[in-house]
Amino acid sequence: MAKTRKQPRPKAETPKGFRDYFGAEVTQRAEMLNVIAAVYHRYGFDALESSAVETVEALGKFLPDVDRPNEGVFAWQEEDAAWLALRYDLTAPLARVYAQHRNDLPIPYRRYAMGPVWRNEKPGPGRFRQFYQCDADTVGSASMAADAEICAMLSDTLEAVGIARGDYVIRINNRKVLNGVMEVAGVLDPSDPEKFAHERGIVLRAIDKLDRLGPEGVRALLGKGREDESGDFTKGAGLGEDQVEVVLSFVLGKERIAEQLASIAEPAGKLNADWEAKYRSISETIEVGDRKSLSVDNQEFTNRLTCTYLRSIVDNSVVGAEGVAELEQIADLLAAQGYGPDRIVIDPSVVRGLGYYTGPVYEAELTFEIFDDKGRKRQFGSVAGGGRYDDLVKRFTGQAVPATGVSIGVDRLLAALREKGRITAQEIGPVVVTVMDRDRMADYQAMVAELRNAGVRAEVYLGNPKNFGNQLKYADRRNSPVAIIEGGDEKARGVVQIKDLILGAQIAQNATLEEWKERPSQFEVARGDLVAKVREILVAHDLGQA
Amino acid sequence: MAKTRKQPRPKAETPKGFRDYFGAEVTQRAEMLNVIAAVYHRYGFDALESSAVETVEALGKFLPDVDRPNEGVFAWQEEDAAWLALRYDLTAPLARVYAQHRNDLPIPYRRYAMGPVWRNEKPGPGRFRQFYQCDADTVGSASMAADAEICAMLSDTLEAVGIARGDYVIRINNRKVLNGVMEVAGVLDPSDPEKFAHERGIVLRAIDKLDRLGPEGVRALLGKGREDESGDFTKGAGLGEDQVEVVLSFVLGKERIAEQLASIAEPAGKLNADWEAKYRSISETIEVGDRKSLSVDNQEFTNRLTCTYLRSIVDNSVVGAEGVAELEQIADLLAAQGYGPDRIVIDPSVVRGLGYYTGPVYEAELTFEIFDDKGRKRQFGSVAGGGRYDDLVKRFTGQAVPATGVSIGVDRLLAALREKGRITAQEIGPVVVTVMDRDRMADYQAMVAELRNAGVRAEVYLGNPKNFGNQLKYADRRNSPVAIIEGGDEKARGVVQIKDLILGAQIAQNATLEEWKERPSQFEVARGDLVAKVREILVAHDLGQA
Repeated sequence: MAKTRKQPRPKAETPKGFRDYFGAEVTQRAEMLNVIAAVYHRYGFDALESSAVETVEALGKFLPDVDRPNEGVFAWQEEDAAWLALRYDLTAPLARVYAQHRNDLPIPYRRYAMGPVWRNEKPGPGRFRQFYQCDADTVGSASMAADAEICAMLSDTLEAVGIARGDYVIRINNRKVLNGVMEVAGVLDPSDPEKFAHERGIVLRAIDKLDRLGPEGVRALLGKGREDESGDFTKGAGLGEDQVEVVLSFVLGKERIAEQLASIAEPAGKLNADWEAKYRSISETIEVGDRKSLSVDNQEFTNRLTCTYLRSIVDNSVVGAEGVAELEQIADLLAAQGYGPDRIVIDPSVVRGLGYYTGPVYEAELTFEIFDDKGRKRQFGSVAGGGRYDDLVKRFTGQAVPATGVSIGVDRLLAALREKGRITAQEIGPVVVTVMDRDRMADYQAMVAELRNAGVRAEVYLGNPKNFGNQLKYADRRNSPVAIIEGGDEKARGVVQIKDLILGAQIAQNATLEEWKERPSQFEVARGDLVAKVREILVAHDLGQA
Repeated sequence: MAKTRKQPRPKAETPKGFRDYFGAEVTQRAEMLNVIAAVYHRYGFDALESSAVETVEALGKFLPDVDRPNEGVFAWQEEDAAWLALRYDLTAPLARVYAQHRNDLPIPYRRYAMGPVWRNEKPGPGRFRQFYQCDADTVGSASMAADAEICAMLSDTLEAVGIARGDYVIRINNRKVLNGVMEVAGVLDPSDPEKFAHERGIVLRAIDKLDRLGPEGVRALLGKGREDESGDFTKGAGLGEDQVEVVLSFVLGKERIAEQLASIAEPAGKLNADWEAKYRSISETIEVGDRKSLSVDNQEFTNRLTCTYLRSIVDNSVVGAEGVAELEQIADLLAAQGYGPDRIVIDPSVVRGLGYYTGPVYEAELTFEIFDDKGRKRQFGSVAGGGRYDDLVKRFTGQAVPATGVSIGVDRLLAALREKGRITAQEIGPVVVTVMDRDRMADYQAMVAELRNAGVRAEVYLGNPKNFGNQLKYADRRNSPVAIIEGGDEKARGVVQIKDLILGAQIAQNATLEEWKERPSQFEVARGDLVAKVREILVAHDLGQA
């Protein structure tokens, strides 16, 4: 109670780039995380919740000579001079946790984690500086079975949260195949890995733009460069025509299979005459975005076909061939578990931005169409991604530890379900017991207690009860299905009035005057029948159990 | 792939005062939060998740002339000069949210929130700088029904998470009664509220120490001062004997009721002859910590009795009498809903530390005994607390907005359930399919896929399969109930081996050699019976559904 100086009033605002989440936005996310956690758990993954705060040193994204290590993260210096920061993803903390606790953890260590992460980036429309991730990783296994398992689990997860089969596809590529392509195209020299780094950067960015620019745009960026519609010129990687062709062959794998297959005189690997005949028949049905047209019989061959095609491109690169062999293993393991290319497909156009991937990379894409801000149709796009990163723990321990994992963008996935109408943003509110007589608050409290004990969401109006209209307005704003009224007259007669607000709203919108009279939305029942009648109304509106 | 300079390896450590949570620690907390959210929801409270980051200005705990506002919070300055901080509780953000969104929110606004909060305090044993809170508040209602509702809900919540009735009590006091006592004791002058502020601080701290120091210790601190066992002297509030007696009468309410009741010649309020007779009979049965001995008939009178007693102390203070009237209202409302003093009791010794409370204050205490670090028995203590704070929103809007709410210490509540043995920290692991032949990984993956599709938590061993002993050690570390083995021989014969690891461990601990032979813990079944047999074993150990 010490005297305080007058201060200007603080602004009631979230910091720039942050937001609050209300009601259904919170509960729907919580339910989704519960569903995802159940799938991860069934796959043998254990929960991990690391602290939101890490030492900047452990996050390890920063250069030691930067005065303040706040590029991309929220960081601050403690009184003891240590720099701390909010985690920017769940993978960097996993590497720290594994290095710190590796003597106590089962190895391989399968873990899942879910929670907010923070990015100190420029906020934009729909881009926030705090958002949820939901990750699953297997640390300590070099087996391709670990990668295949994550992809299968991702497929199960998407279906569990309500994305129908056919509305998504998980696409797999391999960073080693990409490196093989770079080698064959002459922009990677295994004896001098740093050489051509600049060119490779341009090549990677060009591949990543395939969706947006199309094959000819990518071709231009791989060669001399590209002038966009506004006349701006982006300098290209400067590759020769043959080099460009190698990269494009790789990226456009699916489209090229049909044309190229005939020219593979002696396909490498396991092709035999029998298979080749099947490939030929399949190749005619393969089109990007049209995987549903594949019959089940053909599906197991599609991923193998892609592998065979990729081998034809990178067979002269040791690392490239290794990458193809890994993809073949993954395809076989998935086929054994019944995951065909209608769900999980090998697709060379997947690049994934993060530099730390060292083997298979994968991403989940929703294939249904939505309308963007400008009313144009487009595919919903990526909702999850991941891959193998064998060097992340090494930073701490000096020893390479193989690891692979996936991160689901929970908020994007929720947005997708809302777009599809699978969940609605508005929540049904509680039954509202109105207050007709403020001295009888105890009576009204007894009513809500009965309703709640029967499992019905209910509350007494706690505002100023003087204006009854305000109470009904409140019930409306709460999206309440039912309002209860007990005035002095009702009390004396041992009855209550029950207003069906949903029916009332329907009648108000649609009914003629005759119908209005015939279908009353307000019922008088004996006080003892209150709970039964309310439940009857809720059941009639599909909002409760009988 | 840019060249990086050699750097020293980062330390794999959580920052000081932070920790990681593994497996059951995470899932049990998540389950508890789900249970709590369900109760809050049933009471009509809506979910709110505000951002973890707030402007320092909005949190508003700081003086403007402090160079760096990091006392108690983690704060940092952005490039645009704004100071941001991690929230230290969920109440300050609620005030900001309400002020920011008040035109779009239903009023009164009932909301719940759950999540981590951060305190930049010196960490100690069991005290961490990140921990969970779980709050429910009603903003915009001055009605005592709002406070009563929160207490009833808190009672329901504790029972829903597994605290049996009788193992907890919710104690209610009122800051206004306390102020009335101060006034009567002569250390609060309504016409000059700042006077005696120093003395009142000492009085409040003294009352809060009743549990630890006992009545005589408090008496000393209210008077000249107290010398502790080590000889250190703490200066007291300097109250005279009569003043000390007023404060002690208040604090020791329960104990004094029996002695004092006789001296209340004409009790204020609603006492009549009939009631007084009942009070007299009840008064003899009341002892602190012995509320269970009250018969149900007597319970509704106990809280009223306390109110009558309190009125006898503070009746000369306007604010004190107002506080007693509020407590009476709460007691009546709770009685109407069936919450007697076996669950919720009016208790004058509750102070609550936070300065911002303005009316009723309440806390939930677990009454069962545990052993502390030194092997001494003590009550588990407080797990939740809250009260009415009518001035928090005013900081932003200039208008006082009445509000009341509770915060549950989720981690303490979890610790209590573990102490009581209601939940165990160790989780049952997945069924582990071992790898006898690494070329048949696809076969093993097919097995786990079958198990998972049947709802059984299962995984393939993904480490190096060369050493079979390591695989069983892994299953042991995972706390797996069952291991599956299929070598080349089994494959050829169309069977699998199923090891019941729980039974195996039991036999290894207890059985004689004869029993060992009679009760094999390993079974050979046809490959097609794999899932059925595993489920049979899980059901036998009470770990699954038939």
